[in-house]
Amino acid sequence: MQNQLIEPVEVDKIIGEVSLNLKIEEVDLVHSLGRTLAEDIFADRDFPPFHRVAMDGVGIHSSQLGKTDKIFEVEGVQAAGSPQLTLENRENCLEVMTGSVLPLNAEVVIPYEWTEKVEGGVKILDFKNAQMMSNVHQKGSDKAEGEVLIKAGKEISSSEIGILATVGKSKVKVFVRPKIAVIATGDELVGVDDTPNDYQIRMSNCYSLKATLSENGFDSEIFHLTDDKEELLIKIKNIKEQFDVLVFSGGVSKGKFDFLPEVFESLGIKKQFHGVKQRPGKPFWFGKSDKQVVFALPGNPVSTYLCSNRYMIPWLNSQLKKEKYLPSKAILDKDFKFNKPLTFFLQVETFYKEDGLLYANPISGGGSGDLAKLSAANAFIELNAEVNEYKKGQQYTVWFYKK
Amino acid sequence: MQNQLIEPVEVDKIIGEVSLNLKIEEVDLVHSLGRTLAEDIFADRDFPPFHRVAMDGVGIHSSQLGKTDKIFEVEGVQAAGSPQLTLENRENCLEVMTGSVLPLNAEVVIPYEWTEKVEGGVKILDFKNAQMMSNVHQKGSDKAEGEVLIKAGKEISSSEIGILATVGKSKVKVFVRPKIAVIATGDELVGVDDTPNDYQIRMSNCYSLKATLSENGFDSEIFHLTDDKEELLIKIKNIKEQFDVLVFSGGVSKGKFDFLPEVFESLGIKKQFHGVKQRPGKPFWFGKSDKQVVFALPGNPVSTYLCSNRYMIPWLNSQLKKEKYLPSKAILDKDFKFNKPLTFFLQVETFYKEDGLLYANPISGGGSGDLAKLSAANAFIELNAEVNEYKKGQQYTVWFYKK
Repeated sequence: MQNQLIEPVEVDKIIGEVSLNLKIEEVDLVHSLGRTLAEDIFADRDFPPFHRVAMDGVGIHSSQLGKTDKIFEVEGVQAAGSPQLTLENRENCLEVMTGSVLPLNAEVVIPYEWTEKVEGGVKILDFKNAQMMSNVHQKGSDKAEGEVLIKAGKEISSSEIGILATVGKSKVKVFVRPKIAVIATGDELVGVDDTPNDYQIRMSNCYSLKATLSENGFDSEIFHLTDDKEELLIKIKNIKEQFDVLVFSGGVSKGKFDFLPEVFESLGIKKQFHGVKQRPGKPFWFGKSDKQVVFALPGNPVSTYLCSNRYMIPWLNSQLKKEKYLPSKAILDKDFKFNKPLTFFLQVETFYKEDGLLYANPISGGGSGDLAKLSAANAFIELNAEVNEYKKGQQYTVWFYKK
Repeated sequence: MQNQLIEPVEVDKIIGEVSLNLKIEEVDLVHSLGRTLAEDIFADRDFPPFHRVAMDGVGIHSSQLGKTDKIFEVEGVQAAGSPQLTLENRENCLEVMTGSVLPLNAEVVIPYEWTEKVEGGVKILDFKNAQMMSNVHQKGSDKAEGEVLIKAGKEISSSEIGILATVGKSKVKVFVRPKIAVIATGDELVGVDDTPNDYQIRMSNCYSLKATLSENGFDSEIFHLTDDKEELLIKIKNIKEQFDVLVFSGGVSKGKFDFLPEVFESLGIKKQFHGVKQRPGKPFWFGKSDKQVVFALPGNPVSTYLCSNRYMIPWLNSQLKKEKYLPSKAILDKDFKFNKPLTFFLQVETFYKEDGLLYANPISGGGSGDLAKLSAANAFIELNAEVNEYKKGQQYTVWFYKK
């Protein structure tokens, strides 16, 4: 009856070896935010594509540098978005606008601020250090045509959106996101709109799980199943056919009414582990079938939250080839004791001190059912099992669940 | 013609004094993620609402503690989601499931792991340190009915979603988000699907601005206006009637074809400043009318990006009473020089070293038009104007634009 408990690092290893082999799909640029790029993005032409005027001012030939005593006749205005003009007489100038093409024969841009309008033209009061190509963003100086701008595997954030638009990628290849079912189990659960009896509580884990997934860019669908073995078998079979990842909340501790592990076995979902040497989240169950992955998370709110943020989300991100999130370190700001041979995930509020280091303040009170603490805290710090006393001033790994 | 340039701190001050006075609306719980709570959330009953069994096992009376030599007869099973049972005989036990109500007269929960099934009942092999209420999450121990669980002003993340569900808030009061228009200007711009002529570029700023807003939880609508004064006047007047915040990209440098500031004046949008002592983003224009706020950002991609992330997003967040984002510090990992009397926002990639400190590596190359650098970097560090040489090893304020 006793399960063999494993260490958190073993969880990382076992989960890390499971892969969903997600396909690639094409989406509209405007719907690609947060998705993972599945193709390299190349410069479709030089960037800038032309010698681009970088300041409003006058364009002159380089032979005119230093001539503060003359009046430059203005031949015309080179506007942004207009074809390239030619400076016909190298003694003259053309007014040039930011973003416009540098006119032919104009080789230097002198900002308006250094000039003065006078009868018959423009006087340049000061050339400062102007030289050939001053205030010109030269053709191809950022990127040459054909260069890779973004590599496949990058998460598409606002800056990638800008690049994709620039090179004309109105359709973008991205990795297909897994289909995820969030399944609440337990007869003690009633709906959010219901008034619970004394012995009941409202469903909440499924909503916070769905929100956690959503914050990380994953859609999901919520189901509620009661503690009836037959019903569980039929409904889970059905869900299994439609989803890649099944996330259960509740139903995997060792009680008489926790049928899930049994139901999983009979549906061909093989246990990879059941039980982790950690608090909260000890009864965490993980399994897989040929095509599906099943995270069965302990039912209490904080355990669900820890297991999803510490294990499930990083794994989902890795499936989408997102760059690996490396947990950072925080300094414990108060002594803390935990005497059991388990890794303890302590809820903390992190903050920076004047020294530029990240500190973590334990959010005290409540057990693993205290959901209100999850709002006050923003991260868990991972306190390993070998030690019982964790000292103020020492650094530990921190897992953020809020920005 | 020369504008009076102001310092970045003055920008913060001027923008910070402008307020949109956003209203409050009610939304469904499932659509409240990322919104800002506009009401305090109270515990609708004690949490836990009953003495909640925290481990699967047997419930016994406290008078039976230490009796390892006897067989406890099992009176029945207290399941989660079932009304409270009573332990009729204090010499007996009831099996109890995690999440269930503690039966009347049962005062201690002994986990299955410390027990053995025997003929006629259950033997308790080891009581360890079990005492009154061991393995019971006591009624009201997390929060008492009526206590505040979350205060108004909190951004609703996954953990708040869980709390709101628990207390039955299927509808939640949140602050109304401002209506934002993103307006690209410039005749040199063509659509993402178009093939630009040599002197043209594709629209990209409006897409990355929309994405930046979206990443921060704000919807927006995109418009493209050409450099025609009459058209600008008519169209902006129209947009102004429908939106709270107008964000322009391009059109505020001092060129002949940059009509925006003039158009703004004639529409009653009063300039608050035009020009900031910074690079990139020097020509940044900001104004307001009775009801609208206008951010007119310089047209090159990196300037747009800097101004939106450094000034506009923090201001928008402050309008929604979101907790103030305090920029953290990063240590420059390479010497850097900048000789002008301007605050320089250097694009960097941040990373943690073994010492637990955050470092910033300058992403070199390109000017303020180099969009590809925005993908490689993840933050700007703010290098103030008084200094020209910024030394490796020194700490500076860092503004992240990617997680």
